[in-house]
Amino acid sequence: MTTSLSAALAFARESQPRYLVELIEFVSIASVSTDPQAKPEIQRAAQWVASQLRSIGMNNVQILPTAGHPVVYGENLKAGPKKPVVLIYGHYDVQPAEPLELWHSPAFAPQQRGENLYGRGASDMKGQVMVTLKAVEALLQAGDLPVNLKWLIEGEEEIGSPHLEKFIMDNKELLACDFAINPDSGMVALDMPTITYGLRGLAYFELRVSGPAHDLHSGMFGGSVHNPAQALCELIAGMHDREGRITLPGFYDRVRTLDQAERRELARLPINDSFYLEQTGAPALYGEANYSTVERVGGRPTLEVNGLLSGFTGEGTKTVLPAHAMAKISMRLVPDQDPYEVERQLRRYLEEHAPGTIRWELLLHSASPASISNIQLPAVTALAQALEDTWGKPPIYKREGGSVPVVAQMQSILGIESVITGFGLPDDNLHAPNEKLHLPTYFKGIEVFIRYLDLLGS
Amino acid sequence: MTTSLSAALAFARESQPRYLVELIEFVSIASVSTDPQAKPEIQRAAQWVASQLRSIGMNNVQILPTAGHPVVYGENLKAGPKKPVVLIYGHYDVQPAEPLELWHSPAFAPQQRGENLYGRGASDMKGQVMVTLKAVEALLQAGDLPVNLKWLIEGEEEIGSPHLEKFIMDNKELLACDFAINPDSGMVALDMPTITYGLRGLAYFELRVSGPAHDLHSGMFGGSVHNPAQALCELIAGMHDREGRITLPGFYDRVRTLDQAERRELARLPINDSFYLEQTGAPALYGEANYSTVERVGGRPTLEVNGLLSGFTGEGTKTVLPAHAMAKISMRLVPDQDPYEVERQLRRYLEEHAPGTIRWELLLHSASPASISNIQLPAVTALAQALEDTWGKPPIYKREGGSVPVVAQMQSILGIESVITGFGLPDDNLHAPNEKLHLPTYFKGIEVFIRYLDLLGS
Repeated sequence: MTTSLSAALAFARESQPRYLVELIEFVSIASVSTDPQAKPEIQRAAQWVASQLRSIGMNNVQILPTAGHPVVYGENLKAGPKKPVVLIYGHYDVQPAEPLELWHSPAFAPQQRGENLYGRGASDMKGQVMVTLKAVEALLQAGDLPVNLKWLIEGEEEIGSPHLEKFIMDNKELLACDFAINPDSGMVALDMPTITYGLRGLAYFELRVSGPAHDLHSGMFGGSVHNPAQALCELIAGMHDREGRITLPGFYDRVRTLDQAERRELARLPINDSFYLEQTGAPALYGEANYSTVERVGGRPTLEVNGLLSGFTGEGTKTVLPAHAMAKISMRLVPDQDPYEVERQLRRYLEEHAPGTIRWELLLHSASPASISNIQLPAVTALAQALEDTWGKPPIYKREGGSVPVVAQMQSILGIESVITGFGLPDDNLHAPNEKLHLPTYFKGIEVFIRYLDLLGS
Repeated sequence: MTTSLSAALAFARESQPRYLVELIEFVSIASVSTDPQAKPEIQRAAQWVASQLRSIGMNNVQILPTAGHPVVYGENLKAGPKKPVVLIYGHYDVQPAEPLELWHSPAFAPQQRGENLYGRGASDMKGQVMVTLKAVEALLQAGDLPVNLKWLIEGEEEIGSPHLEKFIMDNKELLACDFAINPDSGMVALDMPTITYGLRGLAYFELRVSGPAHDLHSGMFGGSVHNPAQALCELIAGMHDREGRITLPGFYDRVRTLDQAERRELARLPINDSFYLEQTGAPALYGEANYSTVERVGGRPTLEVNGLLSGFTGEGTKTVLPAHAMAKISMRLVPDQDPYEVERQLRRYLEEHAPGTIRWELLLHSASPASISNIQLPAVTALAQALEDTWGKPPIYKREGGSVPVVAQMQSILGIESVITGFGLPDDNLHAPNEKLHLPTYFKGIEVFIRYLDLLGS
């Protein structure tokens, strides 16, 4: 181990109390990207990240506007032309905290209980952004940076990064690099360092069904018109067959088959049905026939109802025949599905199945294809080494069910691969009440990144 | 025409401006029975009715408590034992005003536009209660009351009158009478006076489906569990077959068949499919095969989804796999269906169709059977005469889709029939935004009741 590496690791260990304080500061900002009311908090979060980048020693730090929330950029290119240029990606926005009443402590007043820090965004992904910031800070405290660094920390990941594609296109030169590091994934289990080599894509829709021009009295008009809530349920119910397969016409046509080698590798993951039963608390598992749960989550497309709203939903009763019904419906996509083709498939399904007794409207909220990385890249093997040096065992390679649109965009626009990892755990309650970050793993993650950047520069 | 009858009619005509002012006062009270926050307004409405009863000349006026909202009672029994005792039924509670943003003027700040007064409860049924109060006021201003009167004005009709049955049982003597007048129905069209001889019953449920123990990330867990919103939609979709028939086991077993004479009479109503298309604004009509729309609404049971709620329903997107999904589901019942038997049928349907991948819970919110009255009663023929005297043409007789639990309760507990009428119009937007009352019809209704009570005493 070089002197500067051991000095950086020592600095990081000594700084753990401060790293926790700064993390709490970051998680306290309610930067909910989907909420138009939260714009001031979004601004605060962007400024907080920019001032962190400056304070750890980055140059040319800027808060760059987009048509939506801004992107924070920073760089340090002093390692010289012989060293790689690495782009670190992150996002400073978070999911909404609702339903608030299910949180044991306020979502934006982070609270440490035992080894965990509870707060919205602690794991997804403010904690992960902090891992990279603090690793770089430690390296610079101990000497020079081993690689050239660029940072792209966006504010719209949780709403599908609607303006990032244009931003990357408009800033191709600024963002030019050898590869990207994306720590927005997680570990398959505690003490099981993980590299994610596949991510699912996402196509997120809102389906609105209407019938009568206004709400009706269910007694005076029940029996005369097709209830839009019933019609919406009928349409949704028809989107899966009895085998749990999605029925949109042509939906599976482009789905890349899981080959036998990949199925064998997935079967070796330390994740089985008991894991999913325990993590979800569901009474039983469910999904597409003829695939294991791990395969269904990582390698097969799925269609989920993310929200339903119609009529009277308060306490008690209202005998209304509602005029409207709405569903949020999203598909997780696998290679080589095209989200815009999936939109056409959903429209065709609706055209074929929606009866003339109702009207419908479909909005596309966000679209991104799936991606798969090459695990033989030196950028990946160095990370594998850093993970093994920190945990004492080699990492697990997995395909993940989630979506990171930016990975596909960087591949197509910048022509670069992303190395995907992260230190979140499966029970971190991402996108749910009581999101948390496991602090010992957070501190280990910082050590991994110190070693990783050091290896990349050697 | 007797002198006192013509004096009463003249008094009512002169008093129209004041009758409007008082109606506005009554409609301004936000007495939403389903809203626990609205209790003070419920109290205000009850007190307002009590003071009206006193001011028009009723005795023994009382606000009588129940386990829920109170009942207002009053009487005037000075007509003597040779005259009938008539019980006038009404309710002072109203439906919720939501969605508020669709009202053109505030729901509880009644506004007159053209010939209509807009406000929640204007038609259902504060306007109808006012018709009876003002008719009696006019009769007493012109002389003695032609009949003995009792009033029962309840505060829980819009939530299914959960405590009225017990109230009637506990007050059988106080409420003893020859028959009841219930003006909580409406007219089939403008200038078409109507007597309702059949009402549907109601069984109102809340179905709660749950799966995972907490909301999940739809990427990390999509493909592992049965989405509760999807499962709820599947259960609801299965409740109707392709012919629009309800599939609950045994649901039609007790349904009384519409006989040929009744189908002929219903076919003569001035209501056809164009009427329903125009009133609802739906793109097409829908319902049980082999029945006309009038038959489906008046004489056949129906099942409606009154509300749906699950997951994320705000602006934008949230990639959540929700832990819960809820539907409000109610059935309109016809003779001789038993609402508690319908509850068992729904439970059996759920037991047979709900998969083991989810959990479900069913709550019964309210239950009342359907009722049919004898149209040959003198109490009905006198109303027919009063309607004809006022409008210059005989009334239409119809069966109505709505439910008035009290009619069935009075039949079984007090052993009396109810005469059901009212002066609401089909386009009054009952239970919907922009509820209104047609004022010329309101004033005509007062004249009908003056003539009706006069005829009953002659």
